[in-house]
Amino acid sequence: MSESSPAGTPAEERAGATATGAVAELLGVLAYGELAAFFQLSEDARLAPTLGDRAALAGVAAAEYAHFRLLRDRLVSLGVDPDAAMAPYAEAVDGFHRLTAPSDWLEALVKAYVGTGIAGDFYREAARHLDGDTAKLVDEVLADEDRAEFVVERVRAAVDADPSAAGRLALWARRLVGEALSQAQRVAAERPDLAGLLVDAAAEAGVSDLAEIGRMFARLTESHGKRMALLSLS
Amino acid sequence: MSESSPAGTPAEERAGATATGAVAELLGVLAYGELAAFFQLSEDARLAPTLGDRAALAGVAAAEYAHFRLLRDRLVSLGVDPDAAMAPYAEAVDGFHRLTAPSDWLEALVKAYVGTGIAGDFYREAARHLDGDTAKLVDEVLADEDRAEFVVERVRAAVDADPSAAGRLALWARRLVGEALSQAQRVAAERPDLAGLLVDAAAEAGVSDLAEIGRMFARLTESHGKRMALLSLS
Repeated sequence: MSESSPAGTPAEERAGATATGAVAELLGVLAYGELAAFFQLSEDARLAPTLGDRAALAGVAAAEYAHFRLLRDRLVSLGVDPDAAMAPYAEAVDGFHRLTAPSDWLEALVKAYVGTGIAGDFYREAARHLDGDTAKLVDEVLADEDRAEFVVERVRAAVDADPSAAGRLALWARRLVGEALSQAQRVAAERPDLAGLLVDAAAEAGVSDLAEIGRMFARLTESHGKRMALLSLS
Repeated sequence: MSESSPAGTPAEERAGATATGAVAELLGVLAYGELAAFFQLSEDARLAPTLGDRAALAGVAAAEYAHFRLLRDRLVSLGVDPDAAMAPYAEAVDGFHRLTAPSDWLEALVKAYVGTGIAGDFYREAARHLDGDTAKLVDEVLADEDRAEFVVERVRAAVDADPSAAGRLALWARRLVGEALSQAQRVAAERPDLAGLLVDAAAEAGVSDLAEIGRMFARLTESHGKRMALLSLS
């Protein structure tokens, strides 16, 4: 791309490259995350107790694939090679899934709901101060309440039927959060542009980085708490 | 369903029940086939040599899921429980996939193309003499040429680069056909209504069962031959 773009001042070029770089990085990690979720959910669907449940989780997987396609197409329209944009995140995302392979159907459901919920919150935070089109696309990809109903209903029913399951699943959810944070920190350390999206947002708003990061974590914690409550796990 | 339908003559009731039964059976086997293909293709995608290829086969899997949803929704709108309609075919379809697990990426591609092609031909034959709406739906589900291009291109390139692969893949395709026929015969023997769709079509046309079945196999063989030629495997 850079070879064919008209020449600007070096400073403009740098600013442009950084902005595009951060957008491409955000779309890249989001796209890889959706693709990995597709594979993980289709595999986890094998844990389903009935054909209907199996098909329902396959539906969640297919929705993730549709999201992946939107993101991939946006990368292509920005002149970015999607595979190259996604590749740097494979290790962290695959690592998260390897370390949080569900051992039964309920763990799979909680992971589908809590894991994608946390990931979505992070992406949304990062997208808040992007250009309008990209922010809108990210929101579109993430605003997917359909899948929630099916999972919430199943987990609540299981916890109602066997209240002792709640403790085990709450612990499982805490482990999912821990692994997600640990992989996110790793990505942030390796990808300063992407991490900068969060910090730049704070700088624009005229507040200190630390205060804004603190507020962001408060928002993430609140969203996670709401999801746990919906699942009857808090 | 039958409890709530208005009373007809016993002969009309039998005819209606058989027609609905055969349609539900066709939609049931087709729906289970698409769902199983979704799972198999998402698993086979792990054999892909690149992230781009992996994503492309995931796209074929997601398309199969979309087809499954169309068929499932039609079953629901006919008042038929989709899980009950699909369950009788699980053993035959799963058996086919178990016996034809691809051992590498090229085998996975040939299976994606040849296997779904043969299955599609069978479904199309069975749907030819169904009511207009159902036949149209089945055609819609099966008319999916997008996925073909990607697979054809990859297999042709591989065979061009290494002509010795052609023999091995042609043999693999023959095995896929053999297993597909053997599972289809099993289903036909267990499901006379479904098998009857093929034979009834012949009776309506005023030709003998055997002659029509002979012609049907000639059509299936011809379609398969065309696919093999497109893949540079004949």
